[in-house]
Amino acid sequence: MALIVQKYGGTSVGSPDRIKNVANRVAKYQAEGHQVVVVVSAMSGETNRLIALTKEVAATPDPREMDVVISTGEQVTIGLLCMALQAAGVKARSYTGGQVKILTDSAFTKARILNIDEAPIKADLNSGHVVVVAGFQGVDELGNITTLGRGGSDTTGVALAAALKADECQIYTDVDGVYTTDPRIVPEARKLDRITFEEMLEMASLGSKVLQIRSVEFAGKYRVKLRVLSSFQDGGEGTLITVEEETNMEQPVISGIAFNRDEAKLTVLGVPDKPGIAYQILGPIADANIDVDMIIQNVGHDGCTDFSFTVGRGDLEKAAKILEGVKAHIGARSIVADKSMAKVSIVGVGMRSHPGVASRMFRTLAEEGINIQMISTSEIKISVAIDEKYLELAVRVLHKAFELETA
Amino acid sequence: MALIVQKYGGTSVGSPDRIKNVANRVAKYQAEGHQVVVVVSAMSGETNRLIALTKEVAATPDPREMDVVISTGEQVTIGLLCMALQAAGVKARSYTGGQVKILTDSAFTKARILNIDEAPIKADLNSGHVVVVAGFQGVDELGNITTLGRGGSDTTGVALAAALKADECQIYTDVDGVYTTDPRIVPEARKLDRITFEEMLEMASLGSKVLQIRSVEFAGKYRVKLRVLSSFQDGGEGTLITVEEETNMEQPVISGIAFNRDEAKLTVLGVPDKPGIAYQILGPIADANIDVDMIIQNVGHDGCTDFSFTVGRGDLEKAAKILEGVKAHIGARSIVADKSMAKVSIVGVGMRSHPGVASRMFRTLAEEGINIQMISTSEIKISVAIDEKYLELAVRVLHKAFELETA
Repeated sequence: MALIVQKYGGTSVGSPDRIKNVANRVAKYQAEGHQVVVVVSAMSGETNRLIALTKEVAATPDPREMDVVISTGEQVTIGLLCMALQAAGVKARSYTGGQVKILTDSAFTKARILNIDEAPIKADLNSGHVVVVAGFQGVDELGNITTLGRGGSDTTGVALAAALKADECQIYTDVDGVYTTDPRIVPEARKLDRITFEEMLEMASLGSKVLQIRSVEFAGKYRVKLRVLSSFQDGGEGTLITVEEETNMEQPVISGIAFNRDEAKLTVLGVPDKPGIAYQILGPIADANIDVDMIIQNVGHDGCTDFSFTVGRGDLEKAAKILEGVKAHIGARSIVADKSMAKVSIVGVGMRSHPGVASRMFRTLAEEGINIQMISTSEIKISVAIDEKYLELAVRVLHKAFELETA
Repeated sequence: MALIVQKYGGTSVGSPDRIKNVANRVAKYQAEGHQVVVVVSAMSGETNRLIALTKEVAATPDPREMDVVISTGEQVTIGLLCMALQAAGVKARSYTGGQVKILTDSAFTKARILNIDEAPIKADLNSGHVVVVAGFQGVDELGNITTLGRGGSDTTGVALAAALKADECQIYTDVDGVYTTDPRIVPEARKLDRITFEEMLEMASLGSKVLQIRSVEFAGKYRVKLRVLSSFQDGGEGTLITVEEETNMEQPVISGIAFNRDEAKLTVLGVPDKPGIAYQILGPIADANIDVDMIIQNVGHDGCTDFSFTVGRGDLEKAAKILEGVKAHIGARSIVADKSMAKVSIVGVGMRSHPGVASRMFRTLAEEGINIQMISTSEIKISVAIDEKYLELAVRVLHKAFELETA
């Protein structure tokens, strides 16, 4: 008998029929002798519907009240799923984040989990209940309703698995696992049986939106066995996300190719090449809560240099405006914005022990005439910024160069 | 400075624009120096939408989970109204039933309020906030979410007014007060400035669906000054529902004419005229949770009698089936069902001190050739059951006979 936490996303519970399907799947697990805790998201579309309502009553809705409104989506799902489970003959009991209780800080709309009271859940499990918990939400010390931010239901699932010392946390989604890259771009993309947390973090943060980054960090930290599975296919093993690296000799150098289309580049031309210039440029950007990703400072000449960095495309206009504001102060000649950037990354813990990975990547892109505009590296990934129009081509040739379709 | 509890029903908060209107009205009250607590229902249609969802996942949804689902409707409204108030420059804070907290028993879907913790509300009011509370919902001792049954938001409003010792509880609805009768039937019907709780109870239970009965009982018990007002018209005084009877000499004998179309009559013919027969007939009806209203047992002859009673029309078939089942056992000759009944009542505390009210009622109906099939009386009302086709006529002639248009 195992204790399993299963998390079902919005598409998996997107209609009464799909909720009944989830109930049947959960019932089957329980019938096999497992204890099951289920975490659910709001039915697909519901959170957006609620957010649209808030925008109609207030231009900038108060975050506390925002959480009061949007937390109702998951509350509806837990009640419906319990009803469906009971109709399938399974004892079930629902809990909101406030009832569990999932204690968070008071950072409304992006709260962090501080503690979970697992006692009532354990008691329910031991009396034969399936426990259904609302994802995405918690409660602060004062009893205010909080939410964890988009995709927070994954985090709820992992946090519950950690608190309950569950044997496995299964994340059900509309894909059947983590792939070497997006199969819509590379049809030969292959589902990975295993991937390490570190690799998954790089894959997730680079746009493979299977799992919320925070939940992967959480799982890594608390050593929760995490598995990504499809809620629409039966019998698959999904992808297991593990702490341990694979130990066999055949370990591939690269596990996958991640990419992000949503990039934009800003270049500050002709700034004085002196200490503190990076801070002067990036300080105001950070103050405006704009995330900066890749950064390059060219080698200077004549006491001047160029400074480039990438931001999310949605932040480009705001960031450019900020730079125009500080241009005179920092002594820059001009600002150039390029909104058609993309980032492609090769990810793999195997590259630690394999020199020459970077050069193979650069050569592969060069052979196709793809110009690399920026480079950034970490121990387990190499990212390049390229013109967006070459994105699909770059992903395809890299996938082939690292033999990901057969590894 | 007064402390006012305002309750807005589903139509009054039925859209983002209407919620903004409510916010403006509340803001105006606060600007006049009053402390305001607002109780809101779910946006119109929302509770029905949620109930429809539950029916799609389970034929007989579990009541505990039902309350988890349907309580979300009011939770959405409190958040939206607070946002709208804040957008209008008013400090506001929302509370769910569990947060207030409104402690109830554990009778899911029809819970009763046991206690309200008014301390946090008082603190918020004293710091200049408008407090917005979700109607219709509470929490039991174990932290389970409960709801108070349809129309329960009125009860929440009155219970909060009682707990806070509010100066007045204002119930905003889509009518501008309580009328002498339905203006759709009698265009001369007049809005009452005042009505006693007892009269209101009779009016409400007889089909003038302005207020939920339970909330009126509650208001009477805790001597809460209750006022019914329109949320769509400005400046009206509505109808004040008071504990005290009016003391002036001109007090009208009758305050209003109530009616109910939704009646049906069952007659058990030829039952033995012996003690216990009423229980034998009505016991099984009560066991099936069917409410019986008027009851008549004819004077017997030859050791036999006829026994008639009325039920809601929706219960007629079920009740008739039950009687057919016990017919042989009680020795009845036959069962007759009549589904086209209506009940008309004259209501007024003034009739206590005015003899001859009943005879004026009966004479008025007789003059129009309307046959009275059953009669029931209380200290402040006289009800008659008549053929439904005479309903409008009866209401009109009685309204005129008791000079309600001019009183």
